[in-house]
Amino acid sequence: MKLGPGIAKTPLPKGFYAGGVNSGVRKYRPDVGLIVSDTDITAAGVFTQNEAKAAPVLWSQKLVPSNKIRAIITNSGQANAATGEEGIKNNFLMVKALSDVVGCAPEEVLVASTGMIGVHLNVDLINKSLPELAARVTNTAEHFANAILTTDLVPKTISTTLKLSSGEICITGIAKGSGMIHPNMATMLGYILTDAKIEAQAAHTFLKTAVDQSFNMVSVDGDTSTNDCAFLLANGASGIELKNTEDEVLFQNTVIQISQLLAQAIARDGEGATKLIEINLHGGSDLMLARKAARGLTVSPLFKCAIHGEDPNWGRILARLGAEGIPAAELNQMTLKLQGEEIFTSGAPILFDRDKVRGLLRTDSVLVEIFFPNSNNVPVVKAWGCDFSKKYIDINAEYN
Amino acid sequence: MKLGPGIAKTPLPKGFYAGGVNSGVRKYRPDVGLIVSDTDITAAGVFTQNEAKAAPVLWSQKLVPSNKIRAIITNSGQANAATGEEGIKNNFLMVKALSDVVGCAPEEVLVASTGMIGVHLNVDLINKSLPELAARVTNTAEHFANAILTTDLVPKTISTTLKLSSGEICITGIAKGSGMIHPNMATMLGYILTDAKIEAQAAHTFLKTAVDQSFNMVSVDGDTSTNDCAFLLANGASGIELKNTEDEVLFQNTVIQISQLLAQAIARDGEGATKLIEINLHGGSDLMLARKAARGLTVSPLFKCAIHGEDPNWGRILARLGAEGIPAAELNQMTLKLQGEEIFTSGAPILFDRDKVRGLLRTDSVLVEIFFPNSNNVPVVKAWGCDFSKKYIDINAEYN
Repeated sequence: MKLGPGIAKTPLPKGFYAGGVNSGVRKYRPDVGLIVSDTDITAAGVFTQNEAKAAPVLWSQKLVPSNKIRAIITNSGQANAATGEEGIKNNFLMVKALSDVVGCAPEEVLVASTGMIGVHLNVDLINKSLPELAARVTNTAEHFANAILTTDLVPKTISTTLKLSSGEICITGIAKGSGMIHPNMATMLGYILTDAKIEAQAAHTFLKTAVDQSFNMVSVDGDTSTNDCAFLLANGASGIELKNTEDEVLFQNTVIQISQLLAQAIARDGEGATKLIEINLHGGSDLMLARKAARGLTVSPLFKCAIHGEDPNWGRILARLGAEGIPAAELNQMTLKLQGEEIFTSGAPILFDRDKVRGLLRTDSVLVEIFFPNSNNVPVVKAWGCDFSKKYIDINAEYN
Repeated sequence: MKLGPGIAKTPLPKGFYAGGVNSGVRKYRPDVGLIVSDTDITAAGVFTQNEAKAAPVLWSQKLVPSNKIRAIITNSGQANAATGEEGIKNNFLMVKALSDVVGCAPEEVLVASTGMIGVHLNVDLINKSLPELAARVTNTAEHFANAILTTDLVPKTISTTLKLSSGEICITGIAKGSGMIHPNMATMLGYILTDAKIEAQAAHTFLKTAVDQSFNMVSVDGDTSTNDCAFLLANGASGIELKNTEDEVLFQNTVIQISQLLAQAIARDGEGATKLIEINLHGGSDLMLARKAARGLTVSPLFKCAIHGEDPNWGRILARLGAEGIPAAELNQMTLKLQGEEIFTSGAPILFDRDKVRGLLRTDSVLVEIFFPNSNNVPVVKAWGCDFSKKYIDINAEYN
């Protein structure tokens, strides 16, 4: 399974249709996307923990988990965040217009938005585009994937089929990542679609488990958006249920794998990024602490600069893990590998071939492996980030 | 009261002497500094919360608070961090040599180190320099302030006299800030010296209170060093005690003021910084949350880039405060000022003269004022940081 290239027609699961059009909010690019199903969708969602939640987040989080969703609309260019009561009204006007076009109730429509904070939705323009949008949906993901981008460089889609005990299902993932539109900030949106039959509460558990190991473990700059959302949408169109534990494990693992591939794609496409960084933390004493430490490392400017400079700087790694609260007793037994080469063993630096490791870092994917000596059965924790380049400053300083 | 310029001879309180020499660890620059007193010093210290504490931190934190300290030695160039048992041994060898030179017990000598992580102290070179170092101390701060720098651009010293009810005392502050030496990381060291007579536990309270409002509210990049230390050293040489509450309040406020000026100097001299940023957060509902939010803002790469680009981007401020946990109900009533100009009022963006505000941001000190409507008597929270420039990437990526 690998990510679909941007222009490939990534298939959607049975009964799902998607599209994207330009409504005029943006000059040329598609800026409104729609996913719709022939039949009711079981939908789960997880949302930003930011207290400043955008209007679409406030709307969608009230609806899920649900067994009766029909469509999800996503606009790009205007995040409808920090827009107060008028934002909530505009969000509803968009939902109402789409529900009329699709032929369902407003409460059967989910929303996600991304783009500028603090500007009001141009809801008239968007609503005028909806009949055309609904008329032009297809059974592939590319137009939708394109319509939800902001400053992402590439669309992010992936699809796979899965043989369960009673037949085959399809799972398709779509995401957008960290682009920044003046005057605002990055947003992560993720959509996992499947034609399997799943109950709402189970869908929520599958999604939450996957998000904790994927979208929640990716960072470009440590700033949490007002608009982050991830959804799992299951329409049951394959007629196939998860019959037993084996089916459930297989489904869960595939959703995790898809989410992780999308998370990696988001980090790789981070603002100014030249390298994807993957952290693997083994043998942690506590899962929450291990996750916090791995994420902390991916947002450390000093570490991100070192990787950008292809510098095997174990001191910054050690110092950040200590700052995140990994106990001294564990740090004193830590082993570190960069690109498979040991550079710090059992709590002490070792002589390593610096030129060789620098050479191994001269690539677009960097693996950092951290080993602690605990045997608490804490699973390997993975996190993804990207290096820090001058381009990031260019993109975000908006020089005048 | 303002910071002494780098080359000025900042006076020390009575009975304190300080100096700095080159031991040969660094090529030319002074790299070992000493502060010593004729008589016993009452000493308090606060230390990095990083679990990966350097050997000098482990040594010094065991000794304070104390009524019987005679000297503090600080070496720059080698942090003696992540150096294991040998680091602890080397730290003691340096302490022992200095205590022999000064004529006191090893337990009467505090230590701080800054520089590369993971290399062993060149203790022979350092120890050979100690007789010369002790012989060349003076009653001014400049040689010591210079010897403790790493990649700081300027030494940071300040001194003031203070009229207490029974006579005059002197307080002198010295700090180093955020420089980075390959392969490692920034360290903050702060020293407050006074000739007032203070008990050890009171000294600790004065220092802790000041550090919480100064050194703990400054950030260059959000990475916590293995070596951060701040000390309050009181030798009583003035013969003046703090007789009453008025004296105590005056002394406390002056220590806070000195620490804040040093913290500002550290931020202004941050790696690649072109602007000092001061956050003033008014009307928070909870002191700890207000501090967390103000500090969070000073480490937000998106916010730091916006200030670098002189962009009045209130969306990034709002989003970061929300991400730090400021409740939505408060954000919905927030007012924001940049350089004294209101740009966001009672939870909503307002039309402001963008060109005027951009013009006001074209300066080397930026004030961000955040107002919440609570009346919980939470004091104004101040935090300091700096903008994010391409120079930071240059300094920390160590291009090869």
